[in-house]
Amino acid sequence: MKVSVIGASGRVGKATAFCLAEEDVVDELVLLGREKSLDRLEGEALDMYDALAAKDIGVIITASADMEDVKDSDIVVITSGIPRSADMSRIDVAVPNAKIVAEYSREIAKYAPNSIILVITNPVDVMTYVALKASGFDKNKVFGLGNHLDSLRLKNLVAKHFNIHVSEIHTRVIGEHGDHMVPLVSSTSIGGILVKYFSNYDSFDIDKIIQNVKNAGNYVISKKGSTEYGPAFAISNIISIILNDQKKILTVSTYLESEIEAVNDVCLGVPVKLGINGIERVIRIKMTEKEKKAFLKAAEAVKDTTKEVMKSLDETDLGEIKLNEQMNN
Amino acid sequence: MKVSVIGASGRVGKATAFCLAEEDVVDELVLLGREKSLDRLEGEALDMYDALAAKDIGVIITASADMEDVKDSDIVVITSGIPRSADMSRIDVAVPNAKIVAEYSREIAKYAPNSIILVITNPVDVMTYVALKASGFDKNKVFGLGNHLDSLRLKNLVAKHFNIHVSEIHTRVIGEHGDHMVPLVSSTSIGGILVKYFSNYDSFDIDKIIQNVKNAGNYVISKKGSTEYGPAFAISNIISIILNDQKKILTVSTYLESEIEAVNDVCLGVPVKLGINGIERVIRIKMTEKEKKAFLKAAEAVKDTTKEVMKSLDETDLGEIKLNEQMNN
Amino acid sequence: MKVSVIGASGRVGKATAFCLAEEDVVDELVLLGREKSLDRLEGEALDMYDALAAKDIGVIITASADMEDVKDSDIVVITSGIPRSADMSRIDVAVPNAKIVAEYSREIAKYAPNSIILVITNPVDVMTYVALKASGFDKNKVFGLGNHLDSLRLKNLVAKHFNIHVSEIHTRVIGEHGDHMVPLVSSTSIGGILVKYFSNYDSFDIDKIIQNVKNAGNYVISKKGSTEYGPAFAISNIISIILNDQKKILTVSTYLESEIEAVNDVCLGVPVKLGINGIERVIRIKMTEKEKKAFLKAAEAVKDTTKEVMKSLDETDLGEIKLNEQMNN
Amino acid sequence: MKVSVIGASGRVGKATAFCLAEEDVVDELVLLGREKSLDRLEGEALDMYDALAAKDIGVIITASADMEDVKDSDIVVITSGIPRSADMSRIDVAVPNAKIVAEYSREIAKYAPNSIILVITNPVDVMTYVALKASGFDKNKVFGLGNHLDSLRLKNLVAKHFNIHVSEIHTRVIGEHGDHMVPLVSSTSIGGILVKYFSNYDSFDIDKIIQNVKNAGNYVISKKGSTEYGPAFAISNIISIILNDQKKILTVSTYLESEIEAVNDVCLGVPVKLGINGIERVIRIKMTEKEKKAFLKAAEAVKDTTKEVMKSLDETDLGEIKLNEQMNN
Repeated sequence: MKVSVIGASGRVGKATAFCLAEEDVVDELVLLGREKSLDRLEGEALDMYDALAAKDIGVIITASADMEDVKDSDIVVITSGIPRSADMSRIDVAVPNAKIVAEYSREIAKYAPNSIILVITNPVDVMTYVALKASGFDKNKVFGLGNHLDSLRLKNLVAKHFNIHVSEIHTRVIGEHGDHMVPLVSSTSIGGILVKYFSNYDSFDIDKIIQNVKNAGNYVISKKGSTEYGPAFAISNIISIILNDQKKILTVSTYLESEIEAVNDVCLGVPVKLGINGIERVIRIKMTEKEKKAFLKAAEAVKDTTKEVMKSLDETDLGEIKLNEQMNN
Repeated sequence: MKVSVIGASGRVGKATAFCLAEEDVVDELVLLGREKSLDRLEGEALDMYDALAAKDIGVIITASADMEDVKDSDIVVITSGIPRSADMSRIDVAVPNAKIVAEYSREIAKYAPNSIILVITNPVDVMTYVALKASGFDKNKVFGLGNHLDSLRLKNLVAKHFNIHVSEIHTRVIGEHGDHMVPLVSSTSIGGILVKYFSNYDSFDIDKIIQNVKNAGNYVISKKGSTEYGPAFAISNIISIILNDQKKILTVSTYLESEIEAVNDVCLGVPVKLGINGIERVIRIKMTEKEKKAFLKAAEAVKDTTKEVMKSLDETDLGEIKLNEQMNN
Repeated sequence: MKVSVIGASGRVGKATAFCLAEEDVVDELVLLGREKSLDRLEGEALDMYDALAAKDIGVIITASADMEDVKDSDIVVITSGIPRSADMSRIDVAVPNAKIVAEYSREIAKYAPNSIILVITNPVDVMTYVALKASGFDKNKVFGLGNHLDSLRLKNLVAKHFNIHVSEIHTRVIGEHGDHMVPLVSSTSIGGILVKYFSNYDSFDIDKIIQNVKNAGNYVISKKGSTEYGPAFAISNIISIILNDQKKILTVSTYLESEIEAVNDVCLGVPVKLGINGIERVIRIKMTEKEKKAFLKAAEAVKDTTKEVMKSLDETDLGEIKLNEQMNN
Repeated sequence: MKVSVIGASGRVGKATAFCLAEEDVVDELVLLGREKSLDRLEGEALDMYDALAAKDIGVIITASADMEDVKDSDIVVITSGIPRSADMSRIDVAVPNAKIVAEYSREIAKYAPNSIILVITNPVDVMTYVALKASGFDKNKVFGLGNHLDSLRLKNLVAKHFNIHVSEIHTRVIGEHGDHMVPLVSSTSIGGILVKYFSNYDSFDIDKIIQNVKNAGNYVISKKGSTEYGPAFAISNIISIILNDQKKILTVSTYLESEIEAVNDVCLGVPVKLGINGIERVIRIKMTEKEKKAFLKAAEAVKDTTKEVMKSLDETDLGEIKLNEQMNN
């Protein structure tokens, strides 16, 4: 199994690559970056080899600045993007990142036409849409990390509140990877028991906890300059489930066609069954009224940004045919 | 960490010992049996050593017919008991097994006074009570396997119905390990989503599924003559959580003192937090009315059998002081 | 990945199947046996499902008495054979077992023509030859367990003598899986240091230790009636390396064509590099004079038995063309 | 099990902490650094928690600038030190680093008097000596990473040359972690077969390979600015073996008292058996004449630097009694 990580000189990219190697998920790993980062990528590869020997793992790691090296990849991870500074709005980041994601997606389509694209670049729900259109891939082959990481963060906070091992917490966040995330509180259980049946449920302030989940990424960035291990392991999780064809349910940003609450033509975090072909199917869940309302609001918000971003892209970014296709939506 | 398995020439006993070794849960393992089984136990130990070399695992395994060898065990597992033939009632088995369990529990108290006792012998809720009284140990140190195995079987059947990976099913069975088991259907979720929100929930016949869980053990016995790997891994699960002090929530047969629905002086399957000291605390859960009713019925049924069995034991079985103590209940 | 185990109602067969499942090596597992064992195989499958739920592993397990079910297997393991009683000579067992192995090998060639055949039935070096000829498969696709298990046993005994963790012992047995096994003592090292440089090397009696390795299987059989976990994990080892394409070096019984010391037209235990296509290449090693002499003696002994056994097989066993082919050798 | 990492805001320190957490080696982890790094350490802790949730691992991680928090640590890892710029000699770095290591060692002795100290700061053989003297700990409780990492790098290069899986290479480097490292070529084996018995042994240029091992760290630093994952996993290896009391043989920088070739009063990389009490014993190996000569040269070189560095330390660094003790040597 071969996985390529684009943007592997960035902190998330390199940590992702390393996770994939040391968890023994892949046989072959390509660290891709711009020409100027090639030296660094080579250093990363060597450093990883040393670590793998300590675990008796044999993986082939290649550092490269040439997109041809994604050839025959089973999965390509796009982590590239410009960093967001304090005075930039969300859309200020979205537009330049869309150009980067579109460019790489077109090249992936050229060199690895049978691969799966996993988008990490933010705002991820919008970028997943861009990658889908620019690559021209089937919708089960292009999806984004987002609410899976949010779900993990929610697990941690629930575990802390109830003082229970994190593996016992079963919960899920859907919707947007951003302000409009929707925690499925009604379904949250601890060790197979609904959270509302727990004795210290009364002091459980879900709104405050969700606020913390929303801020978690920025908070880590404010402290250490970047997120790193968190996204890396969430990505490694997703890739491991795909490559081992495990058919588990994860929340990834997915192009919707009315599977849930009639939402369509937008990428949003929803539960899907993942296997060797990518998204096997969207899980058609029902929700409480409150959750449904929040989900529809997330759909609307992401759709608006997506439209604006798509308008900023031209033929060079998306390719002639795809652009026409896009215009009709 | 040292674990002793009593009854290790039986199929559940030996499979349990092997799991503990090959999962690298313990440092030292004692296979205990009657004198006449000693040769067989020695064969098991040698065979296990061969297997462990294939996994590069180093565990010290001792075959023994001498209870002194349980000395310094962190956990002692009691799997011994007479097999139940078709024409025997539950109580027909319970009485002779209680004598066996009582005898071993007293010897454990003598040679490994600081150990934890894990009871496997059936009917397990009654036998756990016997082991508790005969050993004189604190109630957090004596508990039984039962509903954890039932919960695993329920997971399998739910996974099959919904065609979802078994790791995604979060459910729990409490009450009696037997006809009065209580599945917590209201809390059952799949991948963090309540089962009732799933699309093919309408065809989900929980009563029929629970009937299958109840029959599962006997069905396997009717096919292959004994259960073996199933109980072994459920036991290995419990022991691994204890020895690694993981503080996870498992359902084990536990002596109750009004923690849940005011049930007391009986051992029943309830969710507990397990750690290095055994039961850290009973999780004080609430239930739906239907579940609560079933739980109380289980309590009554097990209490009745327990009383009858305890009457059949005398001073030799339980020791003077413990017998008096028991009489007062 | 799909693996079929023929003879899965036997102790080695069922333990092998279980190892493959619980080590999460395969996606699909077929337990094959004679019609009369079908009930037992079904019981094994159910019992295994319970155990897998405890480890959150999802594998599809099928019990079957129909050879068509080996279809699309990546690997088929042949464990079937008659048990050897005390008064039977090696050749007394070899002839009937050869008929069994030949029959199954022909059926495997029919239903799973692209599979790899792993032979466990004893005398394994001869049976590997039979399976190769009866299946008509390429020589890299048919090989037998034997000296890998002997190597593991030797590791254990060396570890015990030097009181060092078993994972530190690097040694290898080649030649025959039987009286003519050849330990590569000159290459044996502990923790990367040649055994002869160790302080208590003087008391290390290799001849006695090898005698113990030769007797190990029979000794376990005399104690517990059968070997079980040892072979099972050795087999699981081999299959895991193949299915994960790990290109590790293991000793398996391999058809030789002069790769080592000009030995040819016989199956013997030699170090090979294993990957997804089976044997990638025989490692062309050199040996000390003493080791070389012992290896040639093993070749001669196995060749003699092989010839005798092949003579006992007719067209029904081997198929017309293969029989002719065989006659020329 | 509790481990504290001093210098956890540095790249090796933080990667080490993360490995220990995600490999589930420890229960409690303290990230220690200077006051000014506290924010960063807190960010690392949060980021690690996210990653651990993806693996369902529960570890307690504390960020701290207060040495009191090392209390009750089983192991304390010292990674702090000044970076070495191009125009600095080895001794230019050794002197200021010795002051740092001495200070921390004294504080460890004060707050965690029963812990094991693992030294990473370079030049590691000298710094191990400093930590031993400053802490006043027994010599089995203080040792350094060095040749274990070199051994891993040598494994990688041998694996590459012979095109064999890295887990099959068994080799060892001893002596100095630096120019005077001594590879035990005579004992090097591949898959249990001496390297000299391999077919492409003739093209195996060990001197060139060792030169590459010596340069490996600097080469990685020149490429990516720092080593990171390589040392981290080598450290995690050592700690895992200690905390699981595995009694494996590793090469760590160890205070010698004539165990090997009569070398004494210096810390050098030698094979030792590691367990829960640290160094259980030095493996008293023999060597070829060439290897022996190189080992004695390494001893001499490290002794010289050690003496010079120790002279630069005063009472404040080492404590009164230890200084006197040192003066007598």
